Amino acid sequence: MTSPIEWLMDREILRQFPQRYARAVDQRDHAALTALFDPDGSVDGTFGQQPVAAYLETMGSRPDTGGTSMHVLADPLIDLEVGADTARLDTYAVVYQVPADGDAPLRTLGMRYVDDMLRREGTWCIHHRVARMVFMR
Amino acid sequence: MTSPIEWLMDREILRQFPQRYARAVDQRDHAALTALFDPDGSVDGTFGQQPVAAYLETMGSRPDTGGTSMHVLADPLIDLEVGADTARLDTYAVVYQVPADGDAPLRTLGMRYVDDMLRREGTWCIHHRVARMVFMR
Amino acid sequence: MTSPIEWLMDREILRQFPQRYARAVDQRDHAALTALFDPDGSVDGTFGQQPVAAYLETMGSRPDTGGTSMHVLADPLIDLEVGADTARLDTYAVVYQVPADGDAPLRTLGMRYVDDMLRREGTWCIHHRVARMVFMR
Repeated sequence: MTSPIEWLMDREILRQFPQRYARAVDQRDHAALTALFDPDGSVDGTFGQQPVAAYLETMGSRPDTGGTSMHVLADPLIDLEVGADTARLDTYAVVYQVPADGDAPLRTLGMRYVDDMLRREGTWCIHHRVARMVFMR
Repeated sequence: MTSPIEWLMDREILRQFPQRYARAVDQRDHAALTALFDPDGSVDGTFGQQPVAAYLETMGSRPDTGGTSMHVLADPLIDLEVGADTARLDTYAVVYQVPADGDAPLRTLGMRYVDDMLRREGTWCIHHRVARMVFMR
Repeated sequence: MTSPIEWLMDREILRQFPQRYARAVDQRDHAALTALFDPDGSVDGTFGQQPVAAYLETMGSRPDTGGTSMHVLADPLIDLEVGADTARLDTYAVVYQVPADGDAPLRTLGMRYVDDMLRREGTWCIHHRVARMVFMR
């Protein structure tokens, strides 16, 4: 297998991360969410800067309001050198927060995720995420 | 050609399906819509569970209200084994229904399409689609 | 390197253009925007049909209202023959125009970009863009 093919395959695997994240968080699938992150990593987002363990605990203990969410993530801009074990993903997203009460207003958030990816023992993971809100309505 | 290259090429072809679907349905292009589906397949969606022929007939006979639609589909999560002739696409979408009357409210639907893909005589097609609405506003 | 691999690599490079455009225009990064377009090309969009130089001047002289924008672009439909130096990208987008005043209404535009791409001296660029608004709210 040549380097260009590995580069292409790595990009396919990396491209799945935003969509896997969307499904994990929308379905409140804690195991799937945990699998995306480097246990030694960190997340700088809505809850401030947190080690991954604390971030996952925060996410897992969110109250279930009965509503649902839909994280619609665009195609990531992927920065990966041939043969590298690190990469950066820059992903735009629109997050719909749908309240349980069908008459209550839908909240829409514009988000941007910048993820420093790391290949650890052959497996890619999110080592450091910066999540920033661009707008909320 | 090695298997990894075929896997990569198949993913490129599969990735086009959600975007081809969006254009076919938004432009009311019946031939383009028909070309996406396995004639022996089925669709479980807005109109219930239907064989593909009945689904296409339903889609083709929708009244033209003079409005337009825009199916903005995110990157699909593609599940494809190397060398396989089946695959699964899981695609998030936001559908904008734009009424002919510019002052009438825009309707926004959050949708999720899960497509079982099949390679028949060398050509990929949607064998079974499950379309579910996540929200509507 | 075989042709299929070059085709796959070209598609990866082409796929980045919509996301690079989104970031360049949202961040008002004139150099990054300029780098996307063929200097001998043209853009047919909001400001009518313009040579690239005039289009870039128009974009660069837009008044800064203090608000921000977010161009959420879907996966492009990529039409590229193996070995070709031209390609076509067809991209759906939702553009959020966020006013500086947090209480002012958010404007949402549905857009479609059709880009004729050209490889010049080994580098891909947008030779001709047609940008059309599908809806605005």
